[in-house]
Amino acid sequence: MSISHTSFLTLENFEGFENAEKYASFVPKLEAYRKKLEDAILPEYSIELPGDIDELKTKQFNPLKYIYEKNLLSEAEFNITDTPASELVPKLAKGELTAVEVFRAFAKRATIAHQFTNCAMEIFNDEGLERAKYLDEYLAKEKKPIGPLHGLPISLKEHMHYKGKATHAGYVSLVDNITPKHGNTTQILENLGAVFYIRTNEPQTLMHLCSNNNFVGAARNPHNLGLSPGGSSSGEGSIVGFGGSPIGIGSDIGGSIRGPAAFSGCIGLRPTSKRVSLAGGVSSGAGQESVPAVQGPMTRSVDDIDFWMSIYINQGKPWETDCNVIPLPWRKVDVPKVDSLTIAVMYDDGLVKPTPPIQRGLKVTADKLSKAGAKVVEFKPIKTKLAYDTVHKMYCCDGNDAQKSLLAESGEPLTKLTQWNLNFGDGGRPFSITENRQLNIIRDALKQEYTDFLNENKIDFILSPTYNNVAPRPEEIYNWSYTSLFNILDLPTLAFQTGLFQDPKVDKWDDSHSTYEFRSDLEKLELDNYIPENFTGAPIGLQLSGRRYFDEEVVAAGKSITKALGADLYKVY
Amino acid sequence: MSISHTSFLTLENFEGFENAEKYASFVPKLEAYRKKLEDAILPEYSIELPGDIDELKTKQFNPLKYIYEKNLLSEAEFNITDTPASELVPKLAKGELTAVEVFRAFAKRATIAHQFTNCAMEIFNDEGLERAKYLDEYLAKEKKPIGPLHGLPISLKEHMHYKGKATHAGYVSLVDNITPKHGNTTQILENLGAVFYIRTNEPQTLMHLCSNNNFVGAARNPHNLGLSPGGSSSGEGSIVGFGGSPIGIGSDIGGSIRGPAAFSGCIGLRPTSKRVSLAGGVSSGAGQESVPAVQGPMTRSVDDIDFWMSIYINQGKPWETDCNVIPLPWRKVDVPKVDSLTIAVMYDDGLVKPTPPIQRGLKVTADKLSKAGAKVVEFKPIKTKLAYDTVHKMYCCDGNDAQKSLLAESGEPLTKLTQWNLNFGDGGRPFSITENRQLNIIRDALKQEYTDFLNENKIDFILSPTYNNVAPRPEEIYNWSYTSLFNILDLPTLAFQTGLFQDPKVDKWDDSHSTYEFRSDLEKLELDNYIPENFTGAPIGLQLSGRRYFDEEVVAAGKSITKALGADLYKVY
Repeated sequence: MSISHTSFLTLENFEGFENAEKYASFVPKLEAYRKKLEDAILPEYSIELPGDIDELKTKQFNPLKYIYEKNLLSEAEFNITDTPASELVPKLAKGELTAVEVFRAFAKRATIAHQFTNCAMEIFNDEGLERAKYLDEYLAKEKKPIGPLHGLPISLKEHMHYKGKATHAGYVSLVDNITPKHGNTTQILENLGAVFYIRTNEPQTLMHLCSNNNFVGAARNPHNLGLSPGGSSSGEGSIVGFGGSPIGIGSDIGGSIRGPAAFSGCIGLRPTSKRVSLAGGVSSGAGQESVPAVQGPMTRSVDDIDFWMSIYINQGKPWETDCNVIPLPWRKVDVPKVDSLTIAVMYDDGLVKPTPPIQRGLKVTADKLSKAGAKVVEFKPIKTKLAYDTVHKMYCCDGNDAQKSLLAESGEPLTKLTQWNLNFGDGGRPFSITENRQLNIIRDALKQEYTDFLNENKIDFILSPTYNNVAPRPEEIYNWSYTSLFNILDLPTLAFQTGLFQDPKVDKWDDSHSTYEFRSDLEKLELDNYIPENFTGAPIGLQLSGRRYFDEEVVAAGKSITKALGADLYKVY
Repeated sequence: MSISHTSFLTLENFEGFENAEKYASFVPKLEAYRKKLEDAILPEYSIELPGDIDELKTKQFNPLKYIYEKNLLSEAEFNITDTPASELVPKLAKGELTAVEVFRAFAKRATIAHQFTNCAMEIFNDEGLERAKYLDEYLAKEKKPIGPLHGLPISLKEHMHYKGKATHAGYVSLVDNITPKHGNTTQILENLGAVFYIRTNEPQTLMHLCSNNNFVGAARNPHNLGLSPGGSSSGEGSIVGFGGSPIGIGSDIGGSIRGPAAFSGCIGLRPTSKRVSLAGGVSSGAGQESVPAVQGPMTRSVDDIDFWMSIYINQGKPWETDCNVIPLPWRKVDVPKVDSLTIAVMYDDGLVKPTPPIQRGLKVTADKLSKAGAKVVEFKPIKTKLAYDTVHKMYCCDGNDAQKSLLAESGEPLTKLTQWNLNFGDGGRPFSITENRQLNIIRDALKQEYTDFLNENKIDFILSPTYNNVAPRPEEIYNWSYTSLFNILDLPTLAFQTGLFQDPKVDKWDDSHSTYEFRSDLEKLELDNYIPENFTGAPIGLQLSGRRYFDEEVVAAGKSITKALGADLYKVY
């Protein structure tokens, strides 16, 4: 396995924990895992694909457009799956729609999503259908919904514990790790009335902004099969972007909700830490507290983000079952008028210059917001290099011991981006606790500096790219600087759509690029990768960050902004 | 320096960082520091002591009783200093009392407190008086108070940064560490209208439940000069217990608010973490996040705790200037009826049995609450040994590098309890980050186990000792198990008074104690120390813990409980 582009990095010799002999004993289990997934593609929900997947990838095929063009769902199914969750739920509660018909529509669209994008780790439509039937019976008998999410299908990133199923987080060594109960958020959603039917694809170790793993391989982008949906909530990006799930639950420690949301044409919120319960999940970062991981929703409209957060927090009361969650109610915040907003735009973080489609996305967004009366100022990034170096050291400060031992237990081959992430920070060097504390002190100083900047300049929000590019080609995403900045700062950040898509004819490098002096090898690696013809039709998403714990304001502003952009999606095409 | 009692511990050889030659250069600075403190005892505020301090210590003299018996303050001064802060503030706001007369009364009582108890690190009554004059002029001119704490004197634990003054946290090496601005909480209190005049005593390293240091030496207990006020918010215990300050700000990572409050006859709240800003303070624990440190108020009534928290949080909005503070408003909670409460009483934590006065305090409290209709059940401690071992490892998991280097820079002699605390956990062994993460995982499991216990058994609060004994003799307090349990669990905990005091005639070991089998060397060390005659008149305080982030409920219940006990103090004697 070689990483030709990354020769500037001294790669460790990882052979120590690749072990073909050991791995051989896991291969039959992986084959059984894949077989089970294949068998779960039921005839009543699936279609015949318009060609071989490799061929569709090469053609940069757009499956989402295709299902509309070919009317692959019935009108009723399209109606259901193109209705926002916040509108579906009252219809389900009143019995205007049955849980079964809603479930079947999503099961069909999810199955097609999987056929095209490989979004699933596991599909269990039989269990979903049974649950939907139970809910219909409940409503008929009790004359009231079981809870405020009665009958709503929700997709789950695989690494969240699921009762009675294996939970592995992309580690082969955990293929038999049957978790006896649901993770806390999953249980809360079930109590609120949700229907589960799919657990979604994620990369080996979870520490890629992509999706490759030794279980089922990489997921694909629902707007262009030649591209990645991003990661690590890869399958959530694919399925929600494709419309196979109205709400998906992802997680984010370096961009893993926002990347997939932006790349796959949907919306994702990285909430401030400790608002959504993380209890009950597999992660190599257990006990790591310097960069907080979060879970959060991925949807097809900002309204649905608000809807989910409000019900999950205010009615799910996650602090009652997880003492690490803060009992901060989700406040009802008025949607602000665009002309009341002051927005600082980060056109370039000083580390890796955005590619032409992202430059265009930023410019069009800034112009539209300015025209709508917003005060738009340029944001000169504050110590982004220090932030990037610090967050990478934090990810790896155990010398990657946790990742390495989970990998070594199976001897599984390392994917390209696992090798890349094992080189983050100081690579394999374990830090001392004194060094870790120093990193925490730097982090807190950075957090305060950004907070003071916002306060002193009366900035409401920071608008920035989620990545220097649109959706990457598979395993060609190396730079996390745009997203991980808001992980180390722990600012609530909403990835949203501009309504624009990459266009190879428009989104070309300008003349000055030929003489551009790269500021680092990383920048050269990333920007050399941008060949306009390879990214046809990729959605152009951006992110909006606000003050710590003021997630409600970020979401409310996201509503105004997407409306001003004409990108308050529900249906993209 | 020897620790005869602790021969069961293998003490490290700490000579390496005691260095007489290096220290010699600091001695003149320390002499100047002490001289400045002595000079700050102004004639108009001070008294002639009724004897030599050493003699008063031997006699277990009670200076608080003495000032009432001898009428050492004028009636007006007594009236002012015996009025709760929540009642003083409206009078100040209306001009019924001037800031100057309030200040002078407290300056006098604080100065006498210091003469008896050595509660101060630094006194600056001149600056306090100037500020009070300014506030009176402001009120006269503007016809409104400057803020909701207009004219209220507040005492501050020394390690909080103070603008233009040295801040050292008991480390001689920091004697010249002039901090350019106030710590965040200090600044907020100043903005709200507080008057500062004293910074209080604390131990070397801050990591003792006592107060000895090389700056000004140990503080003494305001109810018995032969005893310690506890620590590390030692001076706050002494001054607030004596009535020299209506509200003091302490900090707590192992019991440092609750010990001094319970021992010195006052009330103290260890809030849930991140509700009160810690930004801007000296601590060897900077960047340490496994056990959260907190700041919190010490007062002479539970009402005043509520008063301070409400104004500080709701009007001070500490999250605006410190992004690590959670914007959780301080909720107004109805004071519950005692007969609505379910209280689990921890009579013994399974590690160190409480001494007779604490046993009596628990029993009397449980009986009175039962009689008032509360449901009182016995609390069988959950994994207290694991919790205690884990929290001690967390304190020291940097191998005590931070403490050691701050000590080594001056070569200052180590006090007895510094040597003790440098042996916590695995003593000088630095942990790996992987080990630290494991400790965090254990901690979170413990937190959840306690939370589940409360929920499953419908327990509202846990009532427990703050320590196995009443106020200790100087530097004879080794066990932190009762307080540190609630630091590792991060549960809001209120130290309060039962209204009872140690009585050597009553509080004797019962017959069974002569054959008691000590469960550890630590227990033997602690219990052998309890000779009834040595603790005459020590206040008997306890603590009440509630659910994480539900500080308001703990404080409201504290009001009911102290009322039921007839110990809703303001004036003790």
